[in-house]
Amino acid sequence: MTEFVNNGSSTPGEASGRTVVLKLGGSVITEKDTPETVAQERLEAAAKTIGEAEVSNLVVVHGGGSFGHPAAEAAGVSLTDGTTDTAAIREIHAAMGRLNEAVLDALTEAGVPALPVRPFSAGYRTETGDVEMPGGGIQAMLEEGFVPVLHGDVFVTAEKGATIVSGDELVVSIAENLDAGAVGLCTTVPGVLDEEKKVIPRIEAFETVETVLGGSEATDVTGGMAGKVRALLGLEGDAHIFDLDGLATFLHGNAPGTVIGGKDGSR
Amino acid sequence: MTEFVNNGSSTPGEASGRTVVLKLGGSVITEKDTPETVAQERLEAAAKTIGEAEVSNLVVVHGGGSFGHPAAEAAGVSLTDGTTDTAAIREIHAAMGRLNEAVLDALTEAGVPALPVRPFSAGYRTETGDVEMPGGGIQAMLEEGFVPVLHGDVFVTAEKGATIVSGDELVVSIAENLDAGAVGLCTTVPGVLDEEKKVIPRIEAFETVETVLGGSEATDVTGGMAGKVRALLGLEGDAHIFDLDGLATFLHGNAPGTVIGGKDGSR
Repeated sequence: MTEFVNNGSSTPGEASGRTVVLKLGGSVITEKDTPETVAQERLEAAAKTIGEAEVSNLVVVHGGGSFGHPAAEAAGVSLTDGTTDTAAIREIHAAMGRLNEAVLDALTEAGVPALPVRPFSAGYRTETGDVEMPGGGIQAMLEEGFVPVLHGDVFVTAEKGATIVSGDELVVSIAENLDAGAVGLCTTVPGVLDEEKKVIPRIEAFETVETVLGGSEATDVTGGMAGKVRALLGLEGDAHIFDLDGLATFLHGNAPGTVIGGKDGSR
Repeated sequence: MTEFVNNGSSTPGEASGRTVVLKLGGSVITEKDTPETVAQERLEAAAKTIGEAEVSNLVVVHGGGSFGHPAAEAAGVSLTDGTTDTAAIREIHAAMGRLNEAVLDALTEAGVPALPVRPFSAGYRTETGDVEMPGGGIQAMLEEGFVPVLHGDVFVTAEKGATIVSGDELVVSIAENLDAGAVGLCTTVPGVLDEEKKVIPRIEAFETVETVLGGSEATDVTGGMAGKVRALLGLEGDAHIFDLDGLATFLHGNAPGTVIGGKDGSR
């Protein structure tokens, strides 16, 4: 069982394992250009890798891919634009629920004690745009040995009805609330790429990569790679961006792909 | 629009309206003895009454009836007995989700801006058995004009995996967290009944009714009338137990059925 401890310092015992937050990108686990289609082979590969790594204190967050984004776009809802139409809110939430069930099924099949945490029921966005996600329930799940599985979702938002909360925002919020020992984003690319499509090993400041970070190609209300890098730079510790091939490496405590952050040189 | 203010004192303005917590009993909205069967006529009647009352700051909680209880009993899960079987946890949760959707549909049809809050995602039970349900998300929903609809559910529980949280427990927790101005339980009986089947107008202490409160007849892991009375006696203010015929009276600010509590003589 892999235990994640801070900066490689070794503290024995189950309780010492620090939380690992893993995001499975919507484009990894769905066919992004085909509505409501799970990329079953990639999802199962990810689930198998997660099951084999046997990480304690793991939180999984997944994106929406072809499930959440079309419904959100149809309703005109984004990270900043809201709706008070309860039918639209329920439709986006239900679409994400269907994908969440598929992810839970795949993880269960791989021996992971995965359980759903629906962000719409758990948190909200404040007037200033901040994500409020109480960590107590997630912490209680971890202590019982479960693997909470969250997802990008609609999100009640002060003065706007409901907006979208991205999986990336949830990763950052959870990592902060639970003082996570490791944060990883599994994407369709092996890391943040430079102009020559080579993986940038480390990003310490957004300005250094601003020119190379374009938007993602298909429908994506939640910001693409530029948004991920910005959000992860706000974390206390380092974060990692990698693809499915790098997932096992990350879960075993190493640093595949791109490291985001400048405060901590090692894991 | 009915505004609930404390002890009848009148304070104008939307923000002054205090929260009303209404429980719809599982036996009211389902056919309790037939698995997963909605009592469509009674559910629609309740939804219509709620829609017509136009109560501001309304939280609805519903029980499980024939949806949650059989799955919970099959898994050996109760308010105090837990399970770590994620398949069983997901099954109970999904059954309650199907009933929640039916309730949301009926309320939506009646013009109520109803949205789901799944307790499994929102809270947990501590080692001492206390229900922890952060109120921020529900408060945010109310402030946006929505009607949060919660339900009895499986609930992660310290040292037990997951137990059941009853709708009645949630009512008490929410009423305390949100300093509710009115609490009502809509049941299949017009109030708490004495030996002659007449409604007891007020109960101020459990001992006075202990002999007349039997258990509920069909499968019910969550305690029946005795549990309700005990839980409601723990509230700061009064609570009300009534049937569908009393629902409109309650929602319009009056006191049908039985009043539970001894601290406050009027509404």
